[in-house]
Amino acid sequence: MEITYQTIGYIAAILTTASFLPQAFLTLKTRDTESLSLGMYSIFTLGVSLWLVYGLSISDKAIIFSNAITLVLCMSILSMKIYNTVTRDRS
Amino acid sequence: MEITYQTIGYIAAILTTASFLPQAFLTLKTRDTESLSLGMYSIFTLGVSLWLVYGLSISDKAIIFSNAITLVLCMSILSMKIYNTVTRDRS
Repeated sequence: MEITYQTIGYIAAILTTASFLPQAFLTLKTRDTESLSLGMYSIFTLGVSLWLVYGLSISDKAIIFSNAITLVLCMSILSMKIYNTVTRDRS
Repeated sequence: MEITYQTIGYIAAILTTASFLPQAFLTLKTRDTESLSLGMYSIFTLGVSLWLVYGLSISDKAIIFSNAITLVLCMSILSMKIYNTVTRDRS
């Protein structure tokens, strides 16, 4: 089987998208977000949202699909981080 | 100024690349990786490496540049996570 450049691109996209699954599971399971950067997840979520807008603009299914999944995952991590930050500041 | 789809794509790429800066700074400063997923950073680093291979294959400067930066950042985070995991298991 010949591995084309396009295949490498697809595998890369699947890996960078799938990578947020174990982080989301860990974060939702332990509810621990101490060493997660609020700045990272804020900027990353905004960036992924723009990737989704871009994908929709040029009707690229691969960009739409991978960023829609990543958006759900990084938003769940960001939500937990914001929740912990707000409740910690109140206590 | 008209914002083109291409501009949205570039801003998205800059944001998702830059987002790892605050995480890398936080991780290297506090050395705390407790709530970071080893699975995420392992898979993500492999994915970004393949994005770099893909970028080099098709000679796309934007893909090469953004993934080279992200690779340095996520490898520094992954290294700290592996270091903490190994030293914790030994103690």
